[in-house]
Amino acid sequence: MSSLKWKKGGATAPQGFLASGSYCGIKKKRTEDLALIYSEAPCVAAGTFTLNRLVAWPVLWSRNSVKFPYHHAVLASSGNANCFNGPTGEKAIEVSLRKLSKALDIPKESILIAQTGVIGVPFPIKKMEKGISTLYQKLSLKGQGAARGILTTDTRAKECALSFKCKGKEIKVGSIAKGAGMIHPDMATMLVFITTDLNISKPLLNRLLKKAVNETFNQMSIDNDLSTNDCVLVLANGLAGNKRITQESEAKGFYEAMLTICKKQRFEMVRDGEGITKVCTIKIQNAKTAREGGAVARQIANSMLFKTMLAGSDPNWGRVAAAIGSTGIPVDFKKIKISFNGVSLLKNGAPQSANLGKAKKILKKNIFQLEVDLKRGAEEIDFVTSDLTKKYVEINSEYTT
Amino acid sequence: MSSLKWKKGGATAPQGFLASGSYCGIKKKRTEDLALIYSEAPCVAAGTFTLNRLVAWPVLWSRNSVKFPYHHAVLASSGNANCFNGPTGEKAIEVSLRKLSKALDIPKESILIAQTGVIGVPFPIKKMEKGISTLYQKLSLKGQGAARGILTTDTRAKECALSFKCKGKEIKVGSIAKGAGMIHPDMATMLVFITTDLNISKPLLNRLLKKAVNETFNQMSIDNDLSTNDCVLVLANGLAGNKRITQESEAKGFYEAMLTICKKQRFEMVRDGEGITKVCTIKIQNAKTAREGGAVARQIANSMLFKTMLAGSDPNWGRVAAAIGSTGIPVDFKKIKISFNGVSLLKNGAPQSANLGKAKKILKKNIFQLEVDLKRGAEEIDFVTSDLTKKYVEINSEYTT
Repeated sequence: MSSLKWKKGGATAPQGFLASGSYCGIKKKRTEDLALIYSEAPCVAAGTFTLNRLVAWPVLWSRNSVKFPYHHAVLASSGNANCFNGPTGEKAIEVSLRKLSKALDIPKESILIAQTGVIGVPFPIKKMEKGISTLYQKLSLKGQGAARGILTTDTRAKECALSFKCKGKEIKVGSIAKGAGMIHPDMATMLVFITTDLNISKPLLNRLLKKAVNETFNQMSIDNDLSTNDCVLVLANGLAGNKRITQESEAKGFYEAMLTICKKQRFEMVRDGEGITKVCTIKIQNAKTAREGGAVARQIANSMLFKTMLAGSDPNWGRVAAAIGSTGIPVDFKKIKISFNGVSLLKNGAPQSANLGKAKKILKKNIFQLEVDLKRGAEEIDFVTSDLTKKYVEINSEYTT
Repeated sequence: MSSLKWKKGGATAPQGFLASGSYCGIKKKRTEDLALIYSEAPCVAAGTFTLNRLVAWPVLWSRNSVKFPYHHAVLASSGNANCFNGPTGEKAIEVSLRKLSKALDIPKESILIAQTGVIGVPFPIKKMEKGISTLYQKLSLKGQGAARGILTTDTRAKECALSFKCKGKEIKVGSIAKGAGMIHPDMATMLVFITTDLNISKPLLNRLLKKAVNETFNQMSIDNDLSTNDCVLVLANGLAGNKRITQESEAKGFYEAMLTICKKQRFEMVRDGEGITKVCTIKIQNAKTAREGGAVARQIANSMLFKTMLAGSDPNWGRVAAAIGSTGIPVDFKKIKISFNGVSLLKNGAPQSANLGKAKKILKKNIFQLEVDLKRGAEEIDFVTSDLTKKYVEINSEYTT
């Protein structure tokens, strides 16, 4: 009985949000490298951040300032991670905050910052400072360029929005995202900004975001690295006019909407991963616990042998079995089932060789599902992964050169 | 004051060992797919085996039979992993043992078996059975073909031997190995057979082997997978005539020899890894514990971003720093040092940009070293890894097809 409806647009789909993107010269290529999301009405905000011990300056700023009671803006830039780059790093944050808070007449603490790009390169502070002056002037309801302003090696902008009904009010949730390389469990160089006009309490928003991120962005993999810059931010400005939601039981509709947005962005990120030609959703069925299911999925998803086998459309299920076994979980290999789109390759310990041809056809598609039935419990989890291609190697061999 | 001397040959370099290799048809390509090592004099033996929960039939046999008090032979085959392949799997072991124990007139339990190849394919029992009859007749001091009989996607045979002095006696240690893909910490599709004419007690041999394997084969990586078939076996026939060694303190010379052999084979395996063009030894200096040093090395060694950066000769040290940070170890990034062949790229928190050109030249070589000084303690460990190339993807996309 879900009332979810996909809407056009991205971060500016919910009421009261403006956005903009512009080019200031952080990227060599002349394409947007700045993005701004702004709500005149104060928002409650929540965020999840990278678990890497080496964190970029914007993460240091935002994971602290997100505790501030209200927020108005998210400022993002791409082309330079602003991480481990000497004294220019902290200064870039200071200067940007000063400039933007003055321009929009809001407190610095109400601005969240996210940045992505190469690590260890001095930050072009002057360019950023100059860029901010045109960036805020371009703020609009259409929010043109914002989704592009956060991209690095992505090939396309990722924005989506939907609406749902809540106590007679129409609530909207929007988002823009950046994915591509370094995508991995525990977050990666991924930025996701979610906006909503729902009226919700800050602690509840925080709890729901963490839950949604766990079920989605922490269950995907392109390569096996963990970025220093990841964050997912959500801003809720309350303009839909509903009575403030403070209990999880009242927030089911919103959680479903946010989860749907996160799942969609996860899929789009993997699909646009570096050199990716295939997106494979790994469904682990009947795990004993969600943690166990996640561990199995992760082991398969990160196996280079599995990922190259997808690239070659080769239904070599032995590699899946080997990955399951290497988790150390006492799986009974005489019971488990391994299939692609429901076509089984291993069942009750017996290879289903007659199905290899059918499976090969499935693996030739761009999008398909691997099902692993562990027959150990009742938990089900899904995980999105990609193939590993020569193109990935090419892109990542020559990143800074 | 080491008396180690490299010798010609492989498994048959020590006194009393014969070997042979032959083709029986397990491999499609007409090249050796069987190998046998034999000592008429009874040996004490030790082995380490894969930690994957899914284990091949030969591993099930050998990790049990290795407990037998004496051994005469190692039988190996390549082209079929004899794993997860229905009723033919166990039968292949039974038939092979029966055939070989009769031919050589030795108990089944004195034969160790190792196999490597594709998982999930029925085993060609008849071919193996027939092959064994010519295999044992070919046993010779030269041991021709044995080193080739254990290869799969390797491009060359790997054998080495050395001698050392022990209480006036010359002791020899020899080995053959198989590496290539699926090489990973905790062992991979790697087979190593070590022979020696040292007189040593079984419990001590076992202890020394485990220690050497931990320091070498568990510290290397080509991809991030764990095979179902790995094993390292050592046979000691005592023909050198030394007084039986039972204490670790008396075994220093032998341990050094075995460790040197293992390091050499580790290096050769990585160098011959699938699609590899570079071998990089990662030296972690001043870790708090060996375990911590190993964790940092492993994280770097398995990072696809690090491995592709090696392929592209790109000294993007930020990826090394990000990998260190993602271990969660509370490293002080203002203190650590990152360098290649002694040319530092990060020192006291400051990027050494002036050295980038020099570092790029080093990364263009085929063999080099990455040093990471953690400045947290006094432990040092080394780990051998490779680059990740398009060729790797090509080989592994099309393995069974």
